[in-house]
Amino acid sequence: MPILTTYRTPVLAEWVDYNGHLRDAFYLLIFSYATDAFMDLIGLDSNDRDASGHSLFTLEAHINYLHEVKLNEQVEVRTQIVAHDKKRVHLYHSLHRAGVDEALAASEQMLLHVDLAGGAKSAPFNEQSLEKLAEVLDMQIDQPKPTYVGRVIGLPPQR
Amino acid sequence: MPILTTYRTPVLAEWVDYNGHLRDAFYLLIFSYATDAFMDLIGLDSNDRDASGHSLFTLEAHINYLHEVKLNEQVEVRTQIVAHDKKRVHLYHSLHRAGVDEALAASEQMLLHVDLAGGAKSAPFNEQSLEKLAEVLDMQIDQPKPTYVGRVIGLPPQR
Repeated sequence: MPILTTYRTPVLAEWVDYNGHLRDAFYLLIFSYATDAFMDLIGLDSNDRDASGHSLFTLEAHINYLHEVKLNEQVEVRTQIVAHDKKRVHLYHSLHRAGVDEALAASEQMLLHVDLAGGAKSAPFNEQSLEKLAEVLDMQIDQPKPTYVGRVIGLPPQR
Repeated sequence: MPILTTYRTPVLAEWVDYNGHLRDAFYLLIFSYATDAFMDLIGLDSNDRDASGHSLFTLEAHINYLHEVKLNEQVEVRTQIVAHDKKRVHLYHSLHRAGVDEALAASEQMLLHVDLAGGAKSAPFNEQSLEKLAEVLDMQIDQPKPTYVGRVIGLPPQR
């Protein structure tokens, strides 16, 4: 039951605001790099798309901001599969200070497998990717259920 | 009933992937700049935080990706208020090619008004900001209801 850590980085100067805090969009950039790493893991070659001719497109992303993160802090992304079908995968990323369990942010995302050669149309995962997805699901079986999933944004009704 | 256009930009080279398409996180960066402009509009001085001592922190953001966007395309963000209370505002941004009504992406966000001087604790909007929020609500009264709000991410149950 190892945790799947998909990305590690310090918080870079170009990602922080006037106050030295990570800007909201750059949390998602870090999660986006983690998705790239996840793609590599399941054989989709984020750095050499020609090799597979397939990629994952983000259909929808939800992100919860839990704590501020400062310039130069070392952070890491842990990744779980919530669910998948033949051509979609529902991923859950959480952002942490290196080695710390408390989450700084969390994001669930729905990703669609596409065939780049075929005009970026949706396409089923191949056998190799399905095996890798099954491996990751097996690996995470003892991990706690993701916290920030299934959320709806809204204010409580006004008094 | 003018539409509130909060941000205009071409798609920059540092925002696109190997394929020349806007990366998912940079859609959110464009929306983040639009939120800055919205802050200025309601008197929160995104470029001069010392003046107001207050800011908006993003608590949660949901984003739907509807179309790819290419390098150098001119895009604009249109912004509506879904709801607000004394210290939170529920915003809706949509991204468009300049002058085109069809949306390329949409994002609803819950933002919290904070007092930077007081350790970034939540704080009620002042009278001036409340008046500005009311003005924007009045201005948008004839506009269509936002499409991508209240969404939950999930795969349909497997057969």
